[in-house]
Amino acid sequence: MIAEILSVGTELLMGQISNTDAQYLSRRLSELGVTLYRHTTVGDNPGRVKEALNEALSRADMVITTGGLGPTEDDLTKEMVGEFFGLPMELHAPSLEAIRTRMQRIGREMTQNNIKQAYFPHGAIVLPNLCGTAPGCIVESGRKAVAVLPGPPRELQDMFERQLAPYLAKRSGAKIASRFLRVFGVGESKVETLLQDLFHSDNPTLALYCGAGEVVARISARVRTDEDPQRLIAPLEEEIRKRLGEAVYAEGLKHPLAQTVLELLEARGETVAFSESLTGGKLAAAFVDCPGASRALNESYVTYSNEAKHRLLGVQNETLSRFGAVSAECAHEMALGTLRAAKADWAVSTTGIAGPDGGSAEKPVGLVYVGVAHGQQVWTEAFQFRGDREWVRTLACQNALNMLRLKILHAESSRNASSSAE
Amino acid sequence: MIAEILSVGTELLMGQISNTDAQYLSRRLSELGVTLYRHTTVGDNPGRVKEALNEALSRADMVITTGGLGPTEDDLTKEMVGEFFGLPMELHAPSLEAIRTRMQRIGREMTQNNIKQAYFPHGAIVLPNLCGTAPGCIVESGRKAVAVLPGPPRELQDMFERQLAPYLAKRSGAKIASRFLRVFGVGESKVETLLQDLFHSDNPTLALYCGAGEVVARISARVRTDEDPQRLIAPLEEEIRKRLGEAVYAEGLKHPLAQTVLELLEARGETVAFSESLTGGKLAAAFVDCPGASRALNESYVTYSNEAKHRLLGVQNETLSRFGAVSAECAHEMALGTLRAAKADWAVSTTGIAGPDGGSAEKPVGLVYVGVAHGQQVWTEAFQFRGDREWVRTLACQNALNMLRLKILHAESSRNASSSAE
Repeated sequence: MIAEILSVGTELLMGQISNTDAQYLSRRLSELGVTLYRHTTVGDNPGRVKEALNEALSRADMVITTGGLGPTEDDLTKEMVGEFFGLPMELHAPSLEAIRTRMQRIGREMTQNNIKQAYFPHGAIVLPNLCGTAPGCIVESGRKAVAVLPGPPRELQDMFERQLAPYLAKRSGAKIASRFLRVFGVGESKVETLLQDLFHSDNPTLALYCGAGEVVARISARVRTDEDPQRLIAPLEEEIRKRLGEAVYAEGLKHPLAQTVLELLEARGETVAFSESLTGGKLAAAFVDCPGASRALNESYVTYSNEAKHRLLGVQNETLSRFGAVSAECAHEMALGTLRAAKADWAVSTTGIAGPDGGSAEKPVGLVYVGVAHGQQVWTEAFQFRGDREWVRTLACQNALNMLRLKILHAESSRNASSSAE
Repeated sequence: MIAEILSVGTELLMGQISNTDAQYLSRRLSELGVTLYRHTTVGDNPGRVKEALNEALSRADMVITTGGLGPTEDDLTKEMVGEFFGLPMELHAPSLEAIRTRMQRIGREMTQNNIKQAYFPHGAIVLPNLCGTAPGCIVESGRKAVAVLPGPPRELQDMFERQLAPYLAKRSGAKIASRFLRVFGVGESKVETLLQDLFHSDNPTLALYCGAGEVVARISARVRTDEDPQRLIAPLEEEIRKRLGEAVYAEGLKHPLAQTVLELLEARGETVAFSESLTGGKLAAAFVDCPGASRALNESYVTYSNEAKHRLLGVQNETLSRFGAVSAECAHEMALGTLRAAKADWAVSTTGIAGPDGGSAEKPVGLVYVGVAHGQQVWTEAFQFRGDREWVRTLACQNALNMLRLKILHAESSRNASSSAE
């Protein structure tokens, strides 16, 4: 089944609200195995709604409209659908009763305009609205169908899940399942080169897109409703993991890098502390974003001034004057000092130039040093990021977390190696 | 000028990401006085991109495309635009050089696919990408034009503001100017009631939006390109400020609450330090987000565990055992201890229950205490927020900053009052 979404609402075209309905429906349609080829937004204008509807139905089997079901004069999606199919509008008595009851309950007067909300094209399947006033409907004509949904996200989602999704599952016989592999530390074009031959597969399909300093690889498989998509996804996932190795840090869209680090630390029963200069608390905040962060973090420092770096972390004044605060030497001493001050198992330091000012030819804006300390060991790494202050600080955090992740993984494997050598 | 937006990206049709680009462009086009009639999204499919482009150009003077400029094979927006106008693709040497330099700087290998990003339709106005790899372009043909922008929001917004917005302003003859007043500490319906009679004006218009715990009042005036919109905006702004008083904390969309606090501190030559429990660095990070933060912040602490609160800030163990870490007493001692430890002029502490776990009947998820200390004075305030972990932490930060802002303002006015009494 090929579908299109038609969003109706001048407020969308003015950018006053974001079209969360379109994203919600897109995701759910994909999960239900409905192919979505296009999404169109038009304002509350009869001519343009009808034109867009006409075009969408000429291409797709199913059009889902959102919005334009309110009580005001310019809410006219249903009317345009009726006109399109040549169906007269008819009063739906149960809907009128439901609207009347609802208006009484919320203490509003029932207006002529509310009565309009109980009219539907002849023969429509009415979809009651359990979260609001305006009911939706499905209008079928030959092999084509239009589903008319309300705009407010809560009402739309409730109506979709309870009423439209079962209808669609019955009409289509297939579903699409996706898996998302999160990749850090390898650029998009490098990932593409490494996986080049895998993009030619039709089912499952492989696609890449970019996140904050990372790449997400999406594997999607299309199967019959009663089939298990893992049969198709698992072999491709295994091949990708083999080629990208430890650059794959997690699976799933809702799994940030900090969560991976937290899980690694929790598994080892270890703690971490941060000392942040240019990131100014952002690194600790990303960690504390993850529920359960208290199991691996007790305290953390923002040491923005040189004096704070010296007093709190013991960075030597000579280091600061000789190499500057933005130096591998300073990052090294910050990390070591943090390990001691916080009595943590791991420490991560950041120091750099976030901009917009403070850069020089020798140390340009975007230069960042990250230090990681563990036991007697300290590693430092230099990065050169490009972008505005916010972006430089975001990338500094992400790369610091990734550096910590890799060091923990390597400590893990060297521990395993030495224990297997025993 | 009539415009349409054409978003290209299978990830949009699959609902993996929300189309923030479309909302951003819609809002900005409306502010620039450009009429937007339609917004279309299609996947990375040559046939469907070309078809949608064809349709959009048959209706609009200007089509703005987003996405499909990446290095991979299915990124083909530019190529489709060239094909549509019958223009051959040509190498743009400065772009190739910029991409090469960028790749070297970020330590990535330049691939054949990156070279593709330096090709443009013959005669195109190339728009350099100052935040990423893929340049955009404008292709003009007769009275029609297509602007091709990259998909990543940061890159798109930077390119739009610096390069496309001035181009559009020149092409259209009218402009809409807006001013945004940021309001904190007064709810939306209260603001609406206070400003009720001001919403009836046609030009300038007044509208309210909700931000993170705040309300934004937008004043928009439509004028000819050569007119000064201030003539219309200033009187309405003055009236709003009179009615809302110190709840108006700033003007402009890019002026966060932390920036206002930083400016207040800078004007007084004073410093602040934070001690954060549930906010875990987010408060310091919001402050350090502002350029020049080093002028008012030297150091800051994340004291997540009780032990850290005691050792670093001197919170008494008795306070922790008797009242708990989430208490006004603890927030009080944290703020005082921070003032001393950091030798700052102001200190702000946060402690609370961010969830999802850790709540009880007596202390539910969302309960947050904020402490502010200055000299001998300490103030604490309790808040009860509703929402998920991220939202509770965001509101905790915003309200802590606002509490600090008001305390500084009042210190200011009492100082002025006493000096005028002298």
